[in-house]
Amino acid sequence: MTSTLTRTVRVGILGFGTVGSGAYRMLQDNRDAILRRVGVPFEVTKIGIRDTAKPRQLPAEMFTTDLTSIVDDPAIEVVLELIGGVDPAAELVERALRNGKHVVTANKELIAKHGARLISLAKSKGLDLHYEAAVGGGIPLVQPLKHQLAGNDVLKMMGILNGTTNYILTKMQREGADFADVLAEAQAKGYAEADPTNDVDGFDTMYKISVLASIAFHKHLPVEGVYREGIRGVSLLDMQYADALGYTIKFLAIVDAIAEDTILARVHPTLIPKTHPLASVNDVYNALYLHGDFVGDLMFSGRGAGSDPTASAVVGDLLDVGRNIAGGGSGSAIPFDEEPLKTCPIDDLRTAFYLRLVVQDRPKVLGIIATEFGEHDVSLAAMEMKTLDESRGEIVFLTHPCLEKNFRELLVGLKQSGVVEEVCSSIRVVS
Amino acid sequence: MTSTLTRTVRVGILGFGTVGSGAYRMLQDNRDAILRRVGVPFEVTKIGIRDTAKPRQLPAEMFTTDLTSIVDDPAIEVVLELIGGVDPAAELVERALRNGKHVVTANKELIAKHGARLISLAKSKGLDLHYEAAVGGGIPLVQPLKHQLAGNDVLKMMGILNGTTNYILTKMQREGADFADVLAEAQAKGYAEADPTNDVDGFDTMYKISVLASIAFHKHLPVEGVYREGIRGVSLLDMQYADALGYTIKFLAIVDAIAEDTILARVHPTLIPKTHPLASVNDVYNALYLHGDFVGDLMFSGRGAGSDPTASAVVGDLLDVGRNIAGGGSGSAIPFDEEPLKTCPIDDLRTAFYLRLVVQDRPKVLGIIATEFGEHDVSLAAMEMKTLDESRGEIVFLTHPCLEKNFRELLVGLKQSGVVEEVCSSIRVVS
Repeated sequence: MTSTLTRTVRVGILGFGTVGSGAYRMLQDNRDAILRRVGVPFEVTKIGIRDTAKPRQLPAEMFTTDLTSIVDDPAIEVVLELIGGVDPAAELVERALRNGKHVVTANKELIAKHGARLISLAKSKGLDLHYEAAVGGGIPLVQPLKHQLAGNDVLKMMGILNGTTNYILTKMQREGADFADVLAEAQAKGYAEADPTNDVDGFDTMYKISVLASIAFHKHLPVEGVYREGIRGVSLLDMQYADALGYTIKFLAIVDAIAEDTILARVHPTLIPKTHPLASVNDVYNALYLHGDFVGDLMFSGRGAGSDPTASAVVGDLLDVGRNIAGGGSGSAIPFDEEPLKTCPIDDLRTAFYLRLVVQDRPKVLGIIATEFGEHDVSLAAMEMKTLDESRGEIVFLTHPCLEKNFRELLVGLKQSGVVEEVCSSIRVVS
Repeated sequence: MTSTLTRTVRVGILGFGTVGSGAYRMLQDNRDAILRRVGVPFEVTKIGIRDTAKPRQLPAEMFTTDLTSIVDDPAIEVVLELIGGVDPAAELVERALRNGKHVVTANKELIAKHGARLISLAKSKGLDLHYEAAVGGGIPLVQPLKHQLAGNDVLKMMGILNGTTNYILTKMQREGADFADVLAEAQAKGYAEADPTNDVDGFDTMYKISVLASIAFHKHLPVEGVYREGIRGVSLLDMQYADALGYTIKFLAIVDAIAEDTILARVHPTLIPKTHPLASVNDVYNALYLHGDFVGDLMFSGRGAGSDPTASAVVGDLLDVGRNIAGGGSGSAIPFDEEPLKTCPIDDLRTAFYLRLVVQDRPKVLGIIATEFGEHDVSLAAMEMKTLDESRGEIVFLTHPCLEKNFRELLVGLKQSGVVEEVCSSIRVVS
């Protein structure tokens, strides 16, 4: 290994799907500009794939299905882990680090579940382990949180972190279409997976907020500490009521700092006022809103997924690794503590709620319902009523902020009141 | 010098105004959290000021009016340059670097005018020279451009980079107040300087876009290469017309990549559609919109000025210097070439225009004006007319994109046409 600035940094790529092929293309397309900016040429020498039978544009000898051979290859200095999931990614990344290779990954699940351990390992060996692409696609979030914002106590984060679900909600809103229809269309177009669980049930968003909170609060946020509720229950009707009340429904990840080392983290559909900057983040765009004690309010938005934006983040990380190698630096992995963050249960949340009920249309019903609200310490901010047929009406409530636990007990009380036919939906509100 | 992680990094501060005292306060208030995150304690040992007579909360022996003694102090490893302006900041920063000290600065004018040279000097000596706070206050812009976005060819940047002027324009819009009245009020409240030239005539914005473009295009953009036009000419009447046409007037810095190493950079009031994300960036908030070839559209927004947000950026940079010192790294200054970027003159710009005229109210006037438009290859997108009195009318035009040079010649033609009493205002439009 020479230490001149012009020696080539050799790169191995694990996975050549959307992100892997995008990163390769970016390194080729912007080759000259990158060399000028970073002073180091990069060369991809090996690419690990599952299926060699698939036709590729590149020479066959670049590809291998033996992924371990890449993380063991002494000529490779940096491994881009772009296969996703935990198995075998965790083992391969660990092996690459033990072999003295820097790692760049786009894998949110890996970092959420094994980040604390792997980043510490990288640090202890003087290596980089970067993961900007794990959250927010091309939007710089991970590194700014680690560096430019590191002096702040973060008090709140709210993010739209999943492109597929934001696309679905935007389309429902704009076209007045039902969830199931929009999902089916998104699946047909390839915007959503055949099994959409990871996106629509909020696992992807949960991994991402775990990563961001672990950085911001400098301790690991285990995914089990994140309350999670997906968007399957969001109906077009609720969207229309929300709209009339001045709100949009977005799928948010929210973290509140409660006390020293204690947070409340949650992922769920949320009513936010149309005037909030997150309300106008539409389609596949992602955004993170953050409040820090010194920096105040910040917002970052951009394309949160897709081949090119994600490649932008992966390559940005790779260039930093290259600069570090060229400068003889000792690696800049910034670990967070493995000791987990304390988390509050969702019962302790204070939040406003949107609630839609079908009730019996007869005298005294409203009085009975109002009494239930009062008994559970939930007060009302707004209400709309509509007759459905001769015997039934629909009521929509917006509450003032109340304790989640009280609200849940209120729902039980309403069901047992004898006048509520159905609790159709309840959605938390950011006010 | 020991290399254990727990030795203290000694810091000297030049300037103890809004930003300097904010940075000091942040280091104190968040001391424990910073130590936990960075693993290095920071200690401010000397503060350079102009006036020792002013009452201060800190021990008198921390202060000195001999700024050179700080950059010469062998015990100090990092200098925070927070005095602003070029003289004596340039000399002090150079001297600090020559003495082997890392430098963090919030000084946009310094970086715009001397950045290429000073950053190269830092790099050659294995030192850091960071300047996140120079642009956008607490919003991470400088480092993300240098790192996470470094693989992109930046094709366009549009920024609201000055808090004072954004505050003035927002207040004019909201309250229907005149520029002069709002400026006087902002001056009385301390939001605007007694001599507001630096803000309202766009010098501050010009320095900032020079810094951002120099990073993005990796060559120095001299301030002389930036076309500049301030907001003194923006009238309430134009704001109201713009509003009726669906636009907001914002004070933007805009850079377009024209060809390899050639850009067009400009600072001027601009009509932007109300639906554009920059249109809702109000008050003292700043924002940068960016389009990169791989990352696509990005936007960053937050508090662009003030003690706390700017301190957030200064301290973030300082923490990186501390990590670098603790890790034994060789400094991570990323210079841009001193060789200047090529810039196109404003005459070559293709843009739409807003134009307001007072014309004679008699037959054939509109025909004569329309003929002038046609002769100068400027076509119309929208028009509004209003009678002012018996002999005069007011006309507002929105053009389609045209060559700036042609539009300027059109204005000469209109003045000579014999039917135009006054060319009241012309403002570029982002469509």
